Amino acid sequence: MCNYSNDNSACIDISGQLFFLTDSRYSIEATEQAVADKIVISKNIPKTINNILKKSKITRIKFDPYELSLGVYETIVKNSNTQFVSKPYMFKLRRAIKQPHEIDLLKTAINIGRKRFIDIKKLLSHSNMTEQKFNYKTIEILTGKGEQQLSFSPITAFDKNSAKPHAIPSLDKLRTDSLVLVDGGVKYRHYCSDRTETYIDHKKPLQQKIYDIVQKAQHTAIKSAKVGMKAKELDTIAREVIDTAGYGKYFSHSLGHGIGLDIHEYPIISSKSPDMLKEGMVFTIEPGIYLPDKFGVRIEDCVVMKNGKAEVL
Amino acid sequence: MCNYSNDNSACIDISGQLFFLTDSRYSIEATEQAVADKIVISKNIPKTINNILKKSKITRIKFDPYELSLGVYETIVKNSNTQFVSKPYMFKLRRAIKQPHEIDLLKTAINIGRKRFIDIKKLLSHSNMTEQKFNYKTIEILTGKGEQQLSFSPITAFDKNSAKPHAIPSLDKLRTDSLVLVDGGVKYRHYCSDRTETYIDHKKPLQQKIYDIVQKAQHTAIKSAKVGMKAKELDTIAREVIDTAGYGKYFSHSLGHGIGLDIHEYPIISSKSPDMLKEGMVFTIEPGIYLPDKFGVRIEDCVVMKNGKAEVL
Repeated sequence: MCNYSNDNSACIDISGQLFFLTDSRYSIEATEQAVADKIVISKNIPKTINNILKKSKITRIKFDPYELSLGVYETIVKNSNTQFVSKPYMFKLRRAIKQPHEIDLLKTAINIGRKRFIDIKKLLSHSNMTEQKFNYKTIEILTGKGEQQLSFSPITAFDKNSAKPHAIPSLDKLRTDSLVLVDGGVKYRHYCSDRTETYIDHKKPLQQKIYDIVQKAQHTAIKSAKVGMKAKELDTIAREVIDTAGYGKYFSHSLGHGIGLDIHEYPIISSKSPDMLKEGMVFTIEPGIYLPDKFGVRIEDCVVMKNGKAEVL
Repeated sequence: MCNYSNDNSACIDISGQLFFLTDSRYSIEATEQAVADKIVISKNIPKTINNILKKSKITRIKFDPYELSLGVYETIVKNSNTQFVSKPYMFKLRRAIKQPHEIDLLKTAINIGRKRFIDIKKLLSHSNMTEQKFNYKTIEILTGKGEQQLSFSPITAFDKNSAKPHAIPSLDKLRTDSLVLVDGGVKYRHYCSDRTETYIDHKKPLQQKIYDIVQKAQHTAIKSAKVGMKAKELDTIAREVIDTAGYGKYFSHSLGHGIGLDIHEYPIISSKSPDMLKEGMVFTIEPGIYLPDKFGVRIEDCVVMKNGKAEVL
């Protein structure tokens, strides 16, 4: 709402007047960057919100119960005459559909990310490199040695560690025939990219087989996505490809997630998602198969819903 | 409580039986690393907790209202016969006092961090380096090119940007006479270090004057800290040094914070802190003076309360 954030801030909209609240450490930055009618510096943000609401005398205010801790909520509502109307995920729902200029920024971020993977792949020639070192090198490449920020701490896993969808880098070493999974992204003007590539040994039949199934699941999902379809239907379409091949129980996470200023936004592309696919949504499609103690394969791209269907960004 | 965490997890203790809940992405890792009697994999953790509590038939459970969103809380308590007893900050309070083995781990982290600052200081000879590049190089040095994890994204600010206590790296360039503020830390076996050094031009009288005041405030606080003293008294002692010198209004943040597995733990060393200094607490002492549009100086060390007084780690 205010085009700026930090680790201790809040935003409230009172009859169209936008308040951005933060503490004194961020006063200069907030004044320069936050788009708001009033910047409020506070040592106790919940209490200050309580005061602002009391002074404003407004009768109703909407809020997202998942964005406030119970303790903060209790401070804000204390002795208040304002009615608090719970609107689960109101901000996330609003942000699920991207404006054209946001799609352009996401496209730029995603293109930078994709190009950086070309250099990451070259790390495969460094056998004996540890997962931790590989991870560090991946960060170096993704950020362009500091030009870009990361959109999240990248996942880099070799062989059996890749069977953990969110593996932590270990001291295991890269072998010349290692399978390597890399999941990483960068930010461009605060917008995130997200991409996963898995590098397999094409001479190993099981790896090739699993890779082909995951790729087919991803392609099928991309081709099938339509505006007006339920997100959970799309998850089912990809899952059926993997089920049919006999690996259903090894696709242990959801198909994808919205992406934008945050790495995880709406819509949720899962078997339990209540979301509908709409024009302008941007999300990942990332099926995977994880064989415990053997290896995992995940392939991930970002798509935008455009002219009724999914276009790979 | 479970010696392990990730971005979607919960821990509950039912009559001494420890449950660790997470989603399927983390099942292998949680099984390997979490110290718990039962690992529960769930697609909807709050709902699963609600079910576990119903089945357990326990009558009362304590929780921290600042660690649960209102929405999650409402799901957990729905149709429950269990009484939920709000204990604000119960986990943070428990973790404020460190065990001897934790102090050893913190000491190691802090020593690694301190040594890395020797190399960071050498970057000062690279005039024309941008703040962003300096930040990247700082990360490279702090992490030992990936050997250590960062305890937070380091702050590196030149000249007028250093007047923002939490500045974001810009494209401004380092000059041979720049003032440079660096605030950074590393993790050692999950324990965090935190350190700030400010490099001034000793030929500039105002910089030298401000530096001397901040250093005096820090030394006075370190010498004055006693077990049994209120944390807010310690904040006052440092603040008075700066006040007396006429710069009180430019010391815009609190004096320090506890440090451990998280970069910000209890106690809080601020003018409003309810905390008392106790044996075994580890916290930062980091006074600063920030002159808008000119420069800022902050000096930070970590101390442990030992034998009744503060010892610099």
